[in-house]
Amino acid sequence: MTDAATNMRLKLPLICIILEVILIILFGTLVQYNYETDARLWHEHKTNHSDYDNDFYYRYPSFQDVHVMIFIGFGFLMTFLQRYGFSSVGFNFLIAAFALQWATLMQGFFHGMHHGKIHIGVESMINADFCTGSVLISFGAVLGKTSPVQLLVMALFEVTLFAVNEFILLSALQARDAGGSMTIHTFGAYFGLVVARVLYRPNLDKSKHRNSSVYHSDLFAMIGTIYLWMFWPSFNSAITAHGDDQHRTAMNTYYSLAACTLSTYALSALTAHDGKLDMVHIQNAALAGGVAAGTAGEMMLTPFGSMIVGFLAGIISVLGFKYLSPILEEKLKIQDTCGVHNLHGMPGILGAIVGAVTAALATRDVYGDGLEDVFPDVAKGEIEASFQGVRQAISLAVTLGIALLGGLIVGFILKLPIFGAPPDTICFEDSIYWEVPGEEAGHDDQLTTVRTEESEKLNS
Amino acid sequence: MTDAATNMRLKLPLICIILEVILIILFGTLVQYNYETDARLWHEHKTNHSDYDNDFYYRYPSFQDVHVMIFIGFGFLMTFLQRYGFSSVGFNFLIAAFALQWATLMQGFFHGMHHGKIHIGVESMINADFCTGSVLISFGAVLGKTSPVQLLVMALFEVTLFAVNEFILLSALQARDAGGSMTIHTFGAYFGLVVARVLYRPNLDKSKHRNSSVYHSDLFAMIGTIYLWMFWPSFNSAITAHGDDQHRTAMNTYYSLAACTLSTYALSALTAHDGKLDMVHIQNAALAGGVAAGTAGEMMLTPFGSMIVGFLAGIISVLGFKYLSPILEEKLKIQDTCGVHNLHGMPGILGAIVGAVTAALATRDVYGDGLEDVFPDVAKGEIEASFQGVRQAISLAVTLGIALLGGLIVGFILKLPIFGAPPDTICFEDSIYWEVPGEEAGHDDQLTTVRTEESEKLNS
Amino acid sequence: MTDAATNMRLKLPLICIILEVILIILFGTLVQYNYETDARLWHEHKTNHSDYDNDFYYRYPSFQDVHVMIFIGFGFLMTFLQRYGFSSVGFNFLIAAFALQWATLMQGFFHGMHHGKIHIGVESMINADFCTGSVLISFGAVLGKTSPVQLLVMALFEVTLFAVNEFILLSALQARDAGGSMTIHTFGAYFGLVVARVLYRPNLDKSKHRNSSVYHSDLFAMIGTIYLWMFWPSFNSAITAHGDDQHRTAMNTYYSLAACTLSTYALSALTAHDGKLDMVHIQNAALAGGVAAGTAGEMMLTPFGSMIVGFLAGIISVLGFKYLSPILEEKLKIQDTCGVHNLHGMPGILGAIVGAVTAALATRDVYGDGLEDVFPDVAKGEIEASFQGVRQAISLAVTLGIALLGGLIVGFILKLPIFGAPPDTICFEDSIYWEVPGEEAGHDDQLTTVRTEESEKLNS
Repeated sequence: MTDAATNMRLKLPLICIILEVILIILFGTLVQYNYETDARLWHEHKTNHSDYDNDFYYRYPSFQDVHVMIFIGFGFLMTFLQRYGFSSVGFNFLIAAFALQWATLMQGFFHGMHHGKIHIGVESMINADFCTGSVLISFGAVLGKTSPVQLLVMALFEVTLFAVNEFILLSALQARDAGGSMTIHTFGAYFGLVVARVLYRPNLDKSKHRNSSVYHSDLFAMIGTIYLWMFWPSFNSAITAHGDDQHRTAMNTYYSLAACTLSTYALSALTAHDGKLDMVHIQNAALAGGVAAGTAGEMMLTPFGSMIVGFLAGIISVLGFKYLSPILEEKLKIQDTCGVHNLHGMPGILGAIVGAVTAALATRDVYGDGLEDVFPDVAKGEIEASFQGVRQAISLAVTLGIALLGGLIVGFILKLPIFGAPPDTICFEDSIYWEVPGEEAGHDDQLTTVRTEESEKLNS
Repeated sequence: MTDAATNMRLKLPLICIILEVILIILFGTLVQYNYETDARLWHEHKTNHSDYDNDFYYRYPSFQDVHVMIFIGFGFLMTFLQRYGFSSVGFNFLIAAFALQWATLMQGFFHGMHHGKIHIGVESMINADFCTGSVLISFGAVLGKTSPVQLLVMALFEVTLFAVNEFILLSALQARDAGGSMTIHTFGAYFGLVVARVLYRPNLDKSKHRNSSVYHSDLFAMIGTIYLWMFWPSFNSAITAHGDDQHRTAMNTYYSLAACTLSTYALSALTAHDGKLDMVHIQNAALAGGVAAGTAGEMMLTPFGSMIVGFLAGIISVLGFKYLSPILEEKLKIQDTCGVHNLHGMPGILGAIVGAVTAALATRDVYGDGLEDVFPDVAKGEIEASFQGVRQAISLAVTLGIALLGGLIVGFILKLPIFGAPPDTICFEDSIYWEVPGEEAGHDDQLTTVRTEESEKLNS
Repeated sequence: MTDAATNMRLKLPLICIILEVILIILFGTLVQYNYETDARLWHEHKTNHSDYDNDFYYRYPSFQDVHVMIFIGFGFLMTFLQRYGFSSVGFNFLIAAFALQWATLMQGFFHGMHHGKIHIGVESMINADFCTGSVLISFGAVLGKTSPVQLLVMALFEVTLFAVNEFILLSALQARDAGGSMTIHTFGAYFGLVVARVLYRPNLDKSKHRNSSVYHSDLFAMIGTIYLWMFWPSFNSAITAHGDDQHRTAMNTYYSLAACTLSTYALSALTAHDGKLDMVHIQNAALAGGVAAGTAGEMMLTPFGSMIVGFLAGIISVLGFKYLSPILEEKLKIQDTCGVHNLHGMPGILGAIVGAVTAALATRDVYGDGLEDVFPDVAKGEIEASFQGVRQAISLAVTLGIALLGGLIVGFILKLPIFGAPPDTICFEDSIYWEVPGEEAGHDDQLTTVRTEESEKLNS
């Protein structure tokens, strides 16, 4: 089932080793422990703090939840395809392991240089995982149609552009986006969609029979869904200010997701065939509430507001899967394997808009001195709250612009015929890049033999 | 495989949307951020505390462990049925997402009103998840025989009664039940068993062939089991007093579970056919140690006492599965799909009794000033320890009474023919409420085709 | 498929109950709550500390991550075998539940006696889980070829020897080994390999067809892999000193694992057939970076150094699977089911060596006053850093010696014909010790019937 073009024997080792050696060299020259991870620096100021004040204790549990979302959540969510489980989990694993290292450097370059060095600790680890999440969203759009080499190349460029966009939003424009409705979800989704558009395969229907789930693969995918759903409150609150901010963000997200789940089930039964629920909706749309609470989650959105946002996100997302995705594929030639437009794209934009509106409505009456944490410039009186809303709206536009343009360029790079993309006839198929064992165990030896023979006969 | 009666096209959307809209309205009028999640309130008293004192840092990791138990633990534990995995995880997800919102209101109404408003934060989130757990226990008793609409209706009433019972126990009777041996497990189990009794199906054997596991479904179920087992120490300790109490509760539960696991394996091999281990026992009885340590876990039970309790719980639970469940089904007409009587019912009662005895034996010699945390009335000298034991015993009786009576009423409500319950012939079957894909992926295209044709032939 | 010899009806209950009763008695006579879990003791000194200072809040999240690695990580990693999933997860569960209780006693006996009593709390829980990890590594070497009774006997002895070795290393030799490259990985691997050698089965090829994976079993195994990978930073940092030490250790491990993942994919594609990736490598070798950072992780290894270590560990591990394992089996007659030599053995030794070198190079310039935490004897000026390196090297030698000798003796004990080991023809097979249901659900009733009949025909 392989030919020379898709053979990874040299291409994959080459790119992995080159990338890792470059990473190691750059880490050796540029990266240092920060104040809280360096033995000497931490102990120098020991009179001022106790070991228990180390930020490890206030960020690391959130980090681990985010980590689970990146590796189990995204990885297993994509195992819904019947013959692409190894690649879903395995390539997710590979590109995430690369992206988090590269993101440490890129984000450090833009945000964390101190005398020419990048200082790292648990906060940079969370940020690197966030950036990785964005790449994995794009992965969802091209799932099944790309080689691991293409994915690493995509990650290389996307992480870089992510860091640029993040810098413009958070540093230049002073926008707020703790859970990344814009920086992570909108960016990752539209970047991936444009890449998918450039890599459009007119003959993809030759692999159509594999582009669907089987019973057990849908259960594996639910592992991913549930982990993403459970830990999304940790995701959105992972890098907000400590104290009430982190607490409030987690709670807002929790209620947004709960409301989203009910509207997802409602819309799935309403729109699907015979009133039966569709696993695609449950696996994806029920998460849209987390995406949509990504920007405003840290604000005084209230549980009430969060539930409205989540409720709408679920509706939009199911409707997107049902009515918009087919149009995107037929008219715009965007083959979005996982439907990232419905889970991350539209809910991301919704989240950005909700964030802009909530920011514009902020008052000192509501936030008290907590205004300083969420909108420092408004608190200092430098700008009006309404202008913060404008900043947020501009940030959305910038994100869409960079994502679309970046995706376009990177898409054309990935089109180069040297990266070993699978042919149209063997998309969504693990065996092109993996040694794949048989499908099922025999209850007894003879049965296995019979089945294997039958299978061989059919193969020949 | 569907007919008009079980069609969810209108019923499910209707109930989901109505419930969620009511929830949103009630949240909008009644619910407010508490002191630790509100930007203004938290910062008003900022001179007295640091951001690191926010309870988020001392409760949220426990909350996330509980959250995993509710959504992954319960959800996957029930995937053991061969053709009910989508419903097990999916309906668990739906009713939990509803119940946690509703529980916030009901528990807030009984415990947390401040000037007519319900104040919420991480502690109310944990309590809402606890209440949800109780509903999911009842779900286990009726698994496979109920429509999602029935389940939502059941959750609506059960959450309400849970809050009433919890109020009587913890506020009126001043009982202690940190891990919910009574409030969660005994209540959820007996409520569900009575509902199952009322919904008795004399012809359920028509679906008997589907009421069993297959190899892979048992492995999925083990994911649920192991997560419940691992995080039970967090569950029991999630809302105890901070400091030694939380620490001790987690440790007692850890040892109770470990001992329970050994007695479960022993009894499973001893009682099962040919000395072979039975997955039903391992998946369920090994958890009874967590249930049985739910009340006394926060007390000075000692690891020694915890291990004895866990050891007994495992024995009782396996014997229940082996000898009592068949009797319950034949004589009492209680069709308890998951055997919740063995995992939550009897171990819950055991836990309540152990709690009453341990409370009655409490002395200031053993607890020191820590007596204030665990038995405040005893510490203040208002009552004797033995009377606290009496309170605990009364609490068990009250719980059983409310659960049995409540289950009876709710069972009859659920019998109304409008909720779309599945017919006897199609119980334990996903395809009645879900779009279900094929069972297995083809190793190659031809084989898939052949199998699909064969399958179609047999279907026609 | 069972005969008298492998029947567990009496043997397993007997050993489980005897062991648990002994444990309970010993806990009753020897074990007490420590200062932080005892109500009286904690409150006696309440003026000096707040409840938030309880170590529960600074160790318990790490404990839970370690706990997940032990029960989900190890348990599911071993489900890769097509017909041994119940035993992999189930026996892992059983022996871990026993080992953690026994380890509490053994480690307490060597490290934590206070006036004849063992004082326990969250730190002893982590240490018990660590010791359990070592037993599970050995389990990996003999997977599929041992009865649960043999495994419990092995655990009994191995835990004891682990505690002896740990005492020699950490107390007598004052070596540093926070993440257990030596105490856990090297010890567990070589102990298990020698046991596997003694239990060598010349006719194991009769079960060869079962000693491999199927598609879904490899996906279950990836759950184990990913959880081990994600939580390894918590594992290595779980018992280091608080503050910068814990923070740094987690971060070093994170980067070591990321680099290891890239070298694993590179080497897997390079060495495997047709350039296709091999799941065995991904499932195992990608974790070697965590093992190899087990000793030096808490030192000032730097992310740069960690990445080099991880990169090498991945290479060594894949090469071991590809070229060394077949030689070990053919020449040395070591049938290492999971390849623990490649994941824990060689990377453990690498980690020990890296630790010795990093220790020898420690200076006050680099560590500042933090030197006290990592190398107290060096900080006090009692020894030179180079001598600490020598201590580390001696520790590796001691570990290898005790593991090899201990494994030899325990192997011969396990050879006694009374423990119910499976015959050569039925290794790697669940049905010898478990009630096993059918393999697959029918899409519809008729189809199931047909398949069952077909299966029965073939069986007869």
